[in-house]
Amino acid sequence: MNLTSQDLLSALRWRYATKQFDATRKISTDVWDALEESLVLTPSSFGLQPWKFLVVSDPAVRAQLLPESWGQMQVTDASHFVVLAARTDMAMPDIDAWVSRMAEVQGKTEDSLAPMKGMIAGFAERMSVEERHAWNARQVYIALGQLMTSAAVLGIDSCPMEGISPAAYDRVLGLENSGYATAVACALGYRSEADKYATTPKARFERGAVIEHI
Amino acid sequence: MNLTSQDLLSALRWRYATKQFDATRKISTDVWDALEESLVLTPSSFGLQPWKFLVVSDPAVRAQLLPESWGQMQVTDASHFVVLAARTDMAMPDIDAWVSRMAEVQGKTEDSLAPMKGMIAGFAERMSVEERHAWNARQVYIALGQLMTSAAVLGIDSCPMEGISPAAYDRVLGLENSGYATAVACALGYRSEADKYATTPKARFERGAVIEHI
Repeated sequence: MNLTSQDLLSALRWRYATKQFDATRKISTDVWDALEESLVLTPSSFGLQPWKFLVVSDPAVRAQLLPESWGQMQVTDASHFVVLAARTDMAMPDIDAWVSRMAEVQGKTEDSLAPMKGMIAGFAERMSVEERHAWNARQVYIALGQLMTSAAVLGIDSCPMEGISPAAYDRVLGLENSGYATAVACALGYRSEADKYATTPKARFERGAVIEHI
Repeated sequence: MNLTSQDLLSALRWRYATKQFDATRKISTDVWDALEESLVLTPSSFGLQPWKFLVVSDPAVRAQLLPESWGQMQVTDASHFVVLAARTDMAMPDIDAWVSRMAEVQGKTEDSLAPMKGMIAGFAERMSVEERHAWNARQVYIALGQLMTSAAVLGIDSCPMEGISPAAYDRVLGLENSGYATAVACALGYRSEADKYATTPKARFERGAVIEHI
């Protein structure tokens, strides 16, 4: 069953960057499972999925992340806290792993996928390592978008968090030299009744300022 | 009214990167309006909305974009075609415009928002122009994610398109020297019954390979 246009808009208008979560309310297992699956199902360039998603539940680890997040309490108070990390490169083993997985899921031989593999490798080779990392980071933001939109249509609050120290996050989460680096984080849960931002009018530019018809 | 977890997952599993659109089917005005609004409502860092979304309806312009898109027919066949462009910098006038808008919508004085303006400016100033452009481009990918997820829950097909020549797009769309540059595109509409990719099993890595619990 799909949403109506009006229900979609209600959900998107209802959502806001939640500043204060109700620390006593937890997202149910069933709903959290769907949100994790929304991350897994996120589309990415060539399907490469150049990411890892770290769901941080350990209160001690969350407490370590807090000072690396401008002290924003969403880190410790939200029901769930996800760190979205991007692959720092896109090398032949990554592409091999993806093509193997595709062959497995789609019941094809890897040989039959060789032309596609060559095309992806050619695309990646034209970039520098830094450009490949940046490319991967952009894909991670699709996942962030899919996660927040999915949360909104399920009635779950979220707060995207760029105001973090990625290097410190990498250290705390053991990502250093792992081939993945923190890109952004997202807190999810239920807004606190005390969060005054919940009722602040949503500020967006006029539609005509951002959408152009050609 | 929200979606159930199962309905969300059905929608996300139903969606795929549509290769062949039914060129005879158009998205209704009502539904398209909601999808444009999903773009307008996309969250962004500090709320800065460093983007423009170009909805390309003119068949002549679409025909010009086709050869700059590896000849992918989604460009001309899809009901709607959106080019997502990122602001190439984040300078003081951009920040001023955003703070003015916020003051207007929230009924505040610009003076009361001066500390926030200083904080945003400080954040932007620590980056090079290239880093600010990259930062903006990542925000655009949140919009891409929100757009595709919104489309899926409305039963609308989409195809994200990175296989385009951004410089040629900028030329065709008049974006050169506009302060905005093409980041990515997205075709939206209805899948053709002939699209064999619609029934290809969706290939994703195992959940355990991309999600880590800490």
